[in-house]
Amino acid sequence: MSLATETLGFIGLGRMGGPMTRRLIDAGHHVVVYDTRAEALADLPADKVTIAASPAEVGAAARVVICSLPSPAILSSVILGEDGVAAGSAVKIVIDVSTTGPTVASSIAANLKEKGIAFVDSPISGGLAGARGGTLAVMVSCPEATFTEVDPILANFGRRFYCGDAPGSAQVAKLGNNMIAAAVILLSAEALAMGVKAGLDPRVMCDIINASSGRNSATQEKFPRSVLPGTFDFGFTTGLSYKDVRMCVDEAENLGVPMVGGALVRQMLAATKARFGADSDFTSMARIVEEWAGVEIRDRA
Amino acid sequence: MSLATETLGFIGLGRMGGPMTRRLIDAGHHVVVYDTRAEALADLPADKVTIAASPAEVGAAARVVICSLPSPAILSSVILGEDGVAAGSAVKIVIDVSTTGPTVASSIAANLKEKGIAFVDSPISGGLAGARGGTLAVMVSCPEATFTEVDPILANFGRRFYCGDAPGSAQVAKLGNNMIAAAVILLSAEALAMGVKAGLDPRVMCDIINASSGRNSATQEKFPRSVLPGTFDFGFTTGLSYKDVRMCVDEAENLGVPMVGGALVRQMLAATKARFGADSDFTSMARIVEEWAGVEIRDRA
Amino acid sequence: MSLATETLGFIGLGRMGGPMTRRLIDAGHHVVVYDTRAEALADLPADKVTIAASPAEVGAAARVVICSLPSPAILSSVILGEDGVAAGSAVKIVIDVSTTGPTVASSIAANLKEKGIAFVDSPISGGLAGARGGTLAVMVSCPEATFTEVDPILANFGRRFYCGDAPGSAQVAKLGNNMIAAAVILLSAEALAMGVKAGLDPRVMCDIINASSGRNSATQEKFPRSVLPGTFDFGFTTGLSYKDVRMCVDEAENLGVPMVGGALVRQMLAATKARFGADSDFTSMARIVEEWAGVEIRDRA
Amino acid sequence: MSLATETLGFIGLGRMGGPMTRRLIDAGHHVVVYDTRAEALADLPADKVTIAASPAEVGAAARVVICSLPSPAILSSVILGEDGVAAGSAVKIVIDVSTTGPTVASSIAANLKEKGIAFVDSPISGGLAGARGGTLAVMVSCPEATFTEVDPILANFGRRFYCGDAPGSAQVAKLGNNMIAAAVILLSAEALAMGVKAGLDPRVMCDIINASSGRNSATQEKFPRSVLPGTFDFGFTTGLSYKDVRMCVDEAENLGVPMVGGALVRQMLAATKARFGADSDFTSMARIVEEWAGVEIRDRA
Ligand SMILES: NC(=O)C1=CN([C@@H]2O[C@H](COP(=O)(O)OP(=O)(O)OC[C@H]3O[C@@H](n4cnc5c(N)ncnc54)[C@H](OP(=O)(O)O)[C@@H]3O)[C@@H](O)[C@H]2O)C=CC1
Ligand SMILES: NC(=O)C1=CN([C@@H]2O[C@H](COP(=O)(O)OP(=O)(O)OC[C@H]3O[C@@H](n4cnc5c(N)ncnc54)[C@H](OP(=O)(O)O)[C@@H]3O)[C@@H](O)[C@H]2O)C=CC1
Ligand SMILES: NC(=O)C1=CN([C@@H]2O[C@H](COP(=O)(O)OP(=O)(O)OC[C@H]3O[C@@H](n4cnc5c(N)ncnc54)[C@H](OP(=O)(O)O)[C@@H]3O)[C@@H](O)[C@H]2O)C=CC1
Repeated sequence: MSLATETLGFIGLGRMGGPMTRRLIDAGHHVVVYDTRAEALADLPADKVTIAASPAEVGAAARVVICSLPSPAILSSVILGEDGVAAGSAVKIVIDVSTTGPTVASSIAANLKEKGIAFVDSPISGGLAGARGGTLAVMVSCPEATFTEVDPILANFGRRFYCGDAPGSAQVAKLGNNMIAAAVILLSAEALAMGVKAGLDPRVMCDIINASSGRNSATQEKFPRSVLPGTFDFGFTTGLSYKDVRMCVDEAENLGVPMVGGALVRQMLAATKARFGADSDFTSMARIVEEWAGVEIRDRA
Repeated sequence: MSLATETLGFIGLGRMGGPMTRRLIDAGHHVVVYDTRAEALADLPADKVTIAASPAEVGAAARVVICSLPSPAILSSVILGEDGVAAGSAVKIVIDVSTTGPTVASSIAANLKEKGIAFVDSPISGGLAGARGGTLAVMVSCPEATFTEVDPILANFGRRFYCGDAPGSAQVAKLGNNMIAAAVILLSAEALAMGVKAGLDPRVMCDIINASSGRNSATQEKFPRSVLPGTFDFGFTTGLSYKDVRMCVDEAENLGVPMVGGALVRQMLAATKARFGADSDFTSMARIVEEWAGVEIRDRA
Repeated sequence: MSLATETLGFIGLGRMGGPMTRRLIDAGHHVVVYDTRAEALADLPADKVTIAASPAEVGAAARVVICSLPSPAILSSVILGEDGVAAGSAVKIVIDVSTTGPTVASSIAANLKEKGIAFVDSPISGGLAGARGGTLAVMVSCPEATFTEVDPILANFGRRFYCGDAPGSAQVAKLGNNMIAAAVILLSAEALAMGVKAGLDPRVMCDIINASSGRNSATQEKFPRSVLPGTFDFGFTTGLSYKDVRMCVDEAENLGVPMVGGALVRQMLAATKARFGADSDFTSMARIVEEWAGVEIRDRA
Repeated sequence: MSLATETLGFIGLGRMGGPMTRRLIDAGHHVVVYDTRAEALADLPADKVTIAASPAEVGAAARVVICSLPSPAILSSVILGEDGVAAGSAVKIVIDVSTTGPTVASSIAANLKEKGIAFVDSPISGGLAGARGGTLAVMVSCPEATFTEVDPILANFGRRFYCGDAPGSAQVAKLGNNMIAAAVILLSAEALAMGVKAGLDPRVMCDIINASSGRNSATQEKFPRSVLPGTFDFGFTTGLSYKDVRMCVDEAENLGVPMVGGALVRQMLAATKARFGADSDFTSMARIVEEWAGVEIRDRA
């Protein structure tokens, strides 16, 4: 069986995992899938997937199993719990594409190592569009030999960035990225609220910043798409962003890196969560600044 | 005389103003120049420039005069002082391309208006390379008719962004941009210091962030070029950045816009200035974070 | 004429200056007074005061003149302007008890020195009650000989603290004090909002803090008197506190002292001003925290 | 047996627990003690104490057992572990006087309740001097009836503050207090560094602040005793203060209370820990400000 058509396992076919599984199928892989939510497994081409009854069944059917799950606790139990992936006899490599932080990555890696299973810590960035189009940024930390082996599989998802063999270091890269992604929403909101109060059209001001040294993902995408039209629907929740930034600052503190900027962003996300709810879009952080400034950062009629 | 070859005035042929004057000459303009520093006026093609003995002489020789000067106070005195530009009988439009803040822009505009002279507030972004290549971002606020008139001249410098007719609003856009540009140095330093302590190669981490949602001008240019190699020579001083961010936060406060993020960045620049001097490169802000974290964010040997 | 009954000048009989003038009268001084507001001069014992028609008339009638005025600009014009105190022939010492910052103090001192007049920079703390009872903290900077001379007069107002002969250093002490006084409102609000959400009675929690290492003027006075009862009427406006903290952070930056804490408090006061108005009581800063936390820090019914 | 002479248990005779045990002995109680460190149990009057071989033995000998231990994990295992206090048949009330945070307090309380044992969450403030002199602030949360019962015992330690019956609420009060106690070190350092740079004697400036609205425990005690003399020996470590403030901000976030001030202090303590070590005195936070400002806040020679 050639690598390109090797049977793979995939657990967690949610907003990201679903389209990623389809990309593997489209590339010719047969995929053994598992999800607690039945709907997640509907609509899959019956001849190319096998629906497993437990994570252990996935581990019994595939040498490489990929997980895309919502929290560190769920990840742990899916991999190491009773009826978990590791209970399967076929599995040799587990790839985690969730953002779960470096602490759990290290402990799972150590645990699997004892069982002769390699753990690949592989968080991704790029949203739904990236998952569908195979244009994600794929961070990877694992032993170098394992990386060589899984790289062709990960290539279906997007561009790979090898982060070394320390378990969790890809998670650290991801947390740092997400902290900055949240921070620039705050800073851009401050700058744009000032601009609006001074009479500027915020769309013109975004264009200016994007052509200048202040350019960032918030002025390039988030404000034009979700704040200026007032839709606040970028697609990432305040609750998740807060969780990531909180993990980031905690991890930094554990490593001995004070983060005065990151800590402020974390509190502003906490304020956003308190004011607009965990399910609000994380671009709602701009509304905290708007309320203080008494102005809305919106397109002109 | 066609607009394209109209004689223009230029005052302040410094790091930015020098190359900008050359672009005007290359486009076919004759330029009447003035600078307090004799060297700034050396090396200019004698047949295409006239060296004036005072700002007033420039104002006497050209209908449109451009200023690129280091501070609001100098700008005011060059335009409105004894022997200032406004004392010349030819001048009808004064264009200021410096970053001098909205307050002085408004007061100069009002003052010139009484004398029948239009003021164009036109700060620029894009550094030395942009000034030489004509690829600057050129923000413009002035009456709409005046904008139509000066646009072909400003086109020599780069892409124009019209910010409306409120005097100073282009300056507000510029200050907002510069605040964000400084802020992302701090945030990127925090994220990268964490990464280095977790075992990541900071260049790989920059690549990851630039392919992900955290991308910004610091991870795209400043860190790869001036922090990772340890040169700290990006080309903008801590003193100037601090001045800009200070003006930004003050202006925001005047407009009723609290800037918790901007205010923190301002203090970190103040700390950088105290620790490394006003003449240090503003990428030195990363070194404050490095010292705290006890780690250097450098390329691997 | 003995020092204790020497005729004195007093300009600015506002909330602080009014009761301070009365204390001088009660101590046996005759006082020449001036205020732009007629009501401020009503109700004074006619035999013990002389109402002047201008600051200059006060300077013509008294060797020592005290000013209690709302802003640096007004102070300057009252002392140095046309018809200002310095135009009077009798005046030899001018005492400023307002909070006007070190910059204006230095420039007035230099200006008066040329005219042979000593300037005493003497901001006060202790509020209305302190002004009435003569229990203010009186900070003083001026040449040592001048201090010896004015000390018996200042003794009518409260306890004196000699800050040295550098003009403005008493103002610096006052600004530092006021910054801390505002900061502890923010920090106490954060701690108490947490307590209330955890089920604590905020008055008990204030008692605990006041008996422990967190004690400060906010938990000792401001919360018990103006926040817990929900009256927000401590007697110092958000606008004035913001002005003071802004001057403090600016002055610190000028001196090369980064103030990450002070800068945050300044922005929170700016937010309070934007949200509740400059005339709101500065204890309203607690309401910003309350709104974020979705809880009120109030006495139980 | 009268309450005043009832046999009590005490576990953890450290810096705080040692002197507290002595106060109980002096009040006439017989005390059954346990500590892992033999020296902690030396020097006790042999006729008034019984040295137990395990926490369980303490629980077998006394109805009321008091714990003063360094961490939540140790507390849990000492109370609930094998050979823990709860394994003893006599124990009916466990009092915890450590600062361990509300989370562990709640879980221990629930656990003991099932065993018919009441848990009293009773953190203290006041340092060594307070422990020796019986002048601690003693915060207490537990059922009201239990409070009535233990109050005479706690009276030996200092003034009691009843915080209600929600387990952990006394811990919340303590965390809030400790956050403020750390914060005022930062703010006072900023104000005093400014003062020193402006020529003020920092001891005079402390006196001024203490007579004015900025007064707080840092200007009243910590700076005069440990910063101005340059000894940095107040007696509480950076590591412990950081742990407390970290728990405080985390707990506040859990409760939905954003703490922009507290979060900044936490990062400054993290910076202090990174720069001067976890064992440095927490007044060393002032040195971070000193280094930035390039000035020392010290008594004049
Ligand atoms: N450097 C950059 O990357 C950017 C700078 N800017 C802004 O552009 C402005 C100019 O910057 P930059 O070119 O770097 O500054 P420079 O200091 O290099 O240039 C200013 C020039 O003006 C001259 N000058 C000073 N005072 C007078 C006067 N009274 N009359 C005539 N000439 C005078 C200066 O001479 P002397 O040296 O003798 O003072 C110098 O030649 C600033 O406001 C800056 O913030 C905007 C975007 C990018
Ligand atoms: N209030 C407080 O608790 C404390 C205040 N301070 C400081 O003391 C100073 C005074 O405060 P406060 O007494 O509250 O202020 P007020 O505004 O009550 O008093 C100022 C007085 O000066 C008068 N005045 C204004 N302009 C002039 C002028 N050109 N010539 C003569 N008189 C004039 C005012 O009249 P009009 O109303 O017409 O302007 C008013 O009667 C301020 O700098 C403040 O920061 C210091 C410590 C505590
Ligand atoms: N120090 C202070 O100023 C204040 C401290 N607190 C809080 O009080 C608590 C205790 O502080 P402090 O007295 O300074 O701490 P110490 O470390 O001095 O005292 C703790 C004592 O418990 C002993 N111990 C540790 N583990 C065990 C165990 N498993 N079984 C029995 N004994 C054990 C320790 O021994 P060993 O040394 O061998 O670990 C030590 O003798 C902490 O939670 C602290 O936060 C509260 C207010 C003020």
